[in-house]
Amino acid sequence: MLLCNDPIKIREFITLCPPLISKQRREASRLYQTYIIMGKLINDFESYRNKMNDRIMETANTNIKRFFALDTTTYTDGALNVKTKEMLGLVASMVLRCDDCIKYHLGKCHEAGVNHDEMNEVFMIANLVGGSIVIPHYRRAVEYWDELNEGAN
Amino acid sequence: MLLCNDPIKIREFITLCPPLISKQRREASRLYQTYIIMGKLINDFESYRNKMNDRIMETANTNIKRFFALDTTTYTDGALNVKTKEMLGLVASMVLRCDDCIKYHLGKCHEAGVNHDEMNEVFMIANLVGGSIVIPHYRRAVEYWDELNEGAN
Amino acid sequence: MLLCNDPIKIREFITLCPPLISKQRREASRLYQTYIIMGKLINDFESYRNKMNDRIMETANTNIKRFFALDTTTYTDGALNVKTKEMLGLVASMVLRCDDCIKYHLGKCHEAGVNHDEMNEVFMIANLVGGSIVIPHYRRAVEYWDELNEGAN
Amino acid sequence: MLLCNDPIKIREFITLCPPLISKQRREASRLYQTYIIMGKLINDFESYRNKMNDRIMETANTNIKRFFALDTTTYTDGALNVKTKEMLGLVASMVLRCDDCIKYHLGKCHEAGVNHDEMNEVFMIANLVGGSIVIPHYRRAVEYWDELNEGAN
Amino acid sequence: MLLCNDPIKIREFITLCPPLISKQRREASRLYQTYIIMGKLINDFESYRNKMNDRIMETANTNIKRFFALDTTTYTDGALNVKTKEMLGLVASMVLRCDDCIKYHLGKCHEAGVNHDEMNEVFMIANLVGGSIVIPHYRRAVEYWDELNEGAN
Amino acid sequence: MLLCNDPIKIREFITLCPPLISKQRREASRLYQTYIIMGKLINDFESYRNKMNDRIMETANTNIKRFFALDTTTYTDGALNVKTKEMLGLVASMVLRCDDCIKYHLGKCHEAGVNHDEMNEVFMIANLVGGSIVIPHYRRAVEYWDELNEGAN
Repeated sequence: MLLCNDPIKIREFITLCPPLISKQRREASRLYQTYIIMGKLINDFESYRNKMNDRIMETANTNIKRFFALDTTTYTDGALNVKTKEMLGLVASMVLRCDDCIKYHLGKCHEAGVNHDEMNEVFMIANLVGGSIVIPHYRRAVEYWDELNEGAN
Repeated sequence: MLLCNDPIKIREFITLCPPLISKQRREASRLYQTYIIMGKLINDFESYRNKMNDRIMETANTNIKRFFALDTTTYTDGALNVKTKEMLGLVASMVLRCDDCIKYHLGKCHEAGVNHDEMNEVFMIANLVGGSIVIPHYRRAVEYWDELNEGAN
Repeated sequence: MLLCNDPIKIREFITLCPPLISKQRREASRLYQTYIIMGKLINDFESYRNKMNDRIMETANTNIKRFFALDTTTYTDGALNVKTKEMLGLVASMVLRCDDCIKYHLGKCHEAGVNHDEMNEVFMIANLVGGSIVIPHYRRAVEYWDELNEGAN
Repeated sequence: MLLCNDPIKIREFITLCPPLISKQRREASRLYQTYIIMGKLINDFESYRNKMNDRIMETANTNIKRFFALDTTTYTDGALNVKTKEMLGLVASMVLRCDDCIKYHLGKCHEAGVNHDEMNEVFMIANLVGGSIVIPHYRRAVEYWDELNEGAN
Repeated sequence: MLLCNDPIKIREFITLCPPLISKQRREASRLYQTYIIMGKLINDFESYRNKMNDRIMETANTNIKRFFALDTTTYTDGALNVKTKEMLGLVASMVLRCDDCIKYHLGKCHEAGVNHDEMNEVFMIANLVGGSIVIPHYRRAVEYWDELNEGAN
Repeated sequence: MLLCNDPIKIREFITLCPPLISKQRREASRLYQTYIIMGKLINDFESYRNKMNDRIMETANTNIKRFFALDTTTYTDGALNVKTKEMLGLVASMVLRCDDCIKYHLGKCHEAGVNHDEMNEVFMIANLVGGSIVIPHYRRAVEYWDELNEGAN
């Protein structure tokens, strides 16, 4: 049993909870280890995305499935490599201000080896073209990018 | 007293919490029943919406109230029936990517009898016209639509 | 030879041009007849759209062609009929404020038999959801809708 | 008869056209005077807007007319004065990138006495919040604002 | 230790939790006092914004820092005063539908002395220009504005 | 004197206009040569852009000039090369549907050596992320890209 999934609070909980409820304490301790390894934001995003994509594959009509297939094939290697395409997907997502799309493409950019300086230049183009209205999304992107890079170390 | 309102965790809580804190257990058990009946997403959306609409009616000026009145009369039966109008409201909300507006019109479409196949065609038009940037909103729409349909059974 | 394709001015030209340049006069007279029959706005939109779609089919890659194919199949009869789908496409185009998309779906709505009162209710939902920023696009939509209906008489 | 309504070309036409077609020359000369007095961009925008608003009042349903009425009453003097409200309308139109809406509010800002330095600060907020994607609309806004101020001298 | 930071639930917790876990009870009691004083929404927004702005200053490149500097200087007193500029920033944020940007400018408008009636007129322009799609953001804006004004009393 | 700047019509004019008005004929012939060499769309876009940028530099305040400077420095070589940055600028412009911004970045992509297959993959990402609402802008982009490539041969 765990009433909360915030790692800070879980750590407090581990310290504070009385011996009486040692079962919760063990559970909390286990979950806290998980957060260290894979990152809470990434985990939350990925698990919801996977759950709902599964549900979509169960319920969607043929055209929607074709649209999802097209979404996958578009970002494969071609005249442009995956790294460039993922940066294109990211900048498009940032100027259209979709946090989930930003997270998705940040994950893919990370996998494709976009480094810190390159990412900052993508962030700058997004902020410039999209304007200061992009800044709150940029803040969340930096937090997610940090988590991706912590997980990688 | 309940520290959490996630039904999964509440169920775990009911199983795990020691007899000592049986008061929380009873409360958790009661809340879990409620989730089964009306759906957490629907309940959260509706209760916040109602609370703030009440507050707006207390604080808004005449023009804002007229705008809200117009928002109501626009979706009543006319040359087009309510069902068609609510699908129009939904597709507009999806391409403009407003989760709350999507939830609202999903609820109204459900009331107006839009079926599963019709809804998938609305979803497809929204994804096609609005692009893959709509997908995260489509995921949340599917989750909400599922809850609306579970509630109806 | 015709230096201008505004029907009002062409009519003036027919009246005013001296006998000396009777060749232009005949040409102008011919073109003016065409405008009466099919409408200048419709003709301009359709001819450019057709020209560029041909060019796209010559130059695009496989994914783009699949995307265009999907755009076609999405609006065919299904759980929802063509008329409803075209109104959905129109309202989405209006709130996203794309004049060419609006013209396209107005043409399709006209073919599908959307009448004057129904169209006004679609226009109202678009104005309401999208706001007064939609009004200039609504003005151009009314002009195009008028031309479609004149052509039909 | 006039085949063109570009003042530069009309002036060339006045110079170049042979005595034979003196009727066109007189017409061109007259039109050119008009351009000097009221500005071509303003004239084009206002005349189309007025024509289509008249048509909308003939064809629209009650809700659309209410929406247009609300659009008018919103910008009248209240807790905020007309000048402030028109600057609010302008900045909203610029970040949403609607050229006709920008022209309309520029005209109203001009009437309300917004000066050059104030206008530049509105332009800056629009460019900053909306991003470099606003720049082409800002260019057209500067051209229209110049014409408004020339007409005023 | 506190598993939850909802003031309503914290109050329930204070009442319900058994003497055995008096440590949590004291912590809950302390947190509840804090909510009364400064407002939870404001605190959540400000603390996250400050944390991430610090992180951005550590990680961003020169162009991003220049963009942030420009964002600051744009809203200082000039030909237009801070109050007017903050209302311009707010209306732009509302029609572009960015909740965090809305919160930021609501805070600044509050500091600059925008009163209730003036704020309602800004809200009306945002709803009118941006359309009913703005309404969910307007609801959250009213909630935040209420909290700002409670904090001020 | 030339009443029209459409190359097709100019060619017709050259053929049709009577010897009497040979001055216009010579002018038309000269202009038609120019169109062949540099492309009408490019010329129209560049000349208006340059004219208004000059006017902005005359009239803008310091912050606007800083914003324009930032717009220039953002696209210079850095961790990402100019070619990649211009493709990022292009895809952002396409999903935000700004024709002038698209033309600008198409011109820069052409200078940076983006080839036909690469450009098609940028076009696909823009269509996919932004949806079918991007298609009319894609049509105009193809036309402009063709002109850029004709000019290069």
